Amino acid sequence: MDIKFCTACGSPTQQKIPCDDDHVRSVCTNCGQIHYSNPKMVVGCIPELGDQVLLCKRDIEPQKGKWTLPAGYLENRESVQDGAIRETFEETMAKVHIIEPYRLFNIVFVDQIYFMFRASLLSDKFGPTNESIDVRLFDEKDIPWDDIAFKVIKQTLEHYFHDRKTKMFPFKIFDLH
Amino acid sequence: MDIKFCTACGSPTQQKIPCDDDHVRSVCTNCGQIHYSNPKMVVGCIPELGDQVLLCKRDIEPQKGKWTLPAGYLENRESVQDGAIRETFEETMAKVHIIEPYRLFNIVFVDQIYFMFRASLLSDKFGPTNESIDVRLFDEKDIPWDDIAFKVIKQTLEHYFHDRKTKMFPFKIFDLH
Repeated sequence: MDIKFCTACGSPTQQKIPCDDDHVRSVCTNCGQIHYSNPKMVVGCIPELGDQVLLCKRDIEPQKGKWTLPAGYLENRESVQDGAIRETFEETMAKVHIIEPYRLFNIVFVDQIYFMFRASLLSDKFGPTNESIDVRLFDEKDIPWDDIAFKVIKQTLEHYFHDRKTKMFPFKIFDLH
Repeated sequence: MDIKFCTACGSPTQQKIPCDDDHVRSVCTNCGQIHYSNPKMVVGCIPELGDQVLLCKRDIEPQKGKWTLPAGYLENRESVQDGAIRETFEETMAKVHIIEPYRLFNIVFVDQIYFMFRASLLSDKFGPTNESIDVRLFDEKDIPWDDIAFKVIKQTLEHYFHDRKTKMFPFKIFDLH
């Protein structure tokens, strides 16, 4: 999001490199306020129940109608675990317990850091929400690979089912291009 | 940072919960622009050379004059690894190779997520910078424990030297209170 006006005084900003800095920032032409823009964290999980994983079918843009893992922007005053638990509940009505961190994806071209956990469903209670028109448990063989909403989610699922063969799920970092 | 004025049109904002949202946001009273504020990632590393680790003595506030590990805000268009490498160079003039991720700290009361790597120094070239009045390699016995700048850095170092006894450095997440 472009910062065209100062958040502190409402005057126009200009793009410049402040003293002792090496990045261009939006700097207020009136009060001098420097506005920083930084990557956002997206937190989510792979909710497991036995051999199945929970996916949700998006009822909102982008990628409305496609399947995804529950994930969303980390909010202020929230830990990465709590954010993943909250997003899972908001998108699937499911309550989960975090098992462990699984993947970090750098998606530098959209300034997002995806942080995905493995998680276990605490019950078989889940269902549609404002954000998801359908929520379902899938066996590996039934995953709708051609209808996954985002490349980062497809990669997370591919890695997960690959690792499941060995039952070893080391935390790893990848770059998405 | 409070968002008192709209970044898109410069009009005053008001604090309210937008439709289909459940958090209070700064919403423009004129154009309706919603402003999101999210946690920032701080990325850094423990630079190793043999049995020693590299610390830098801060020449800037906060905690000017105290010792720390190189770390700073992740920038847009940057991976977490690249951010840690850049911050290390900016604060110590040292070039490092990332070994692996080591710790994530949730510091929810300041909306920061610290992400610390283990890293190896590529040479013994390092020295003072704009941000650090002194940069030195320390043996464990010489770490200035009473003069570490931030609690998160002290914990990272404590965990690191504890893990070093077993030569196992599993990635873990902690909350800082």
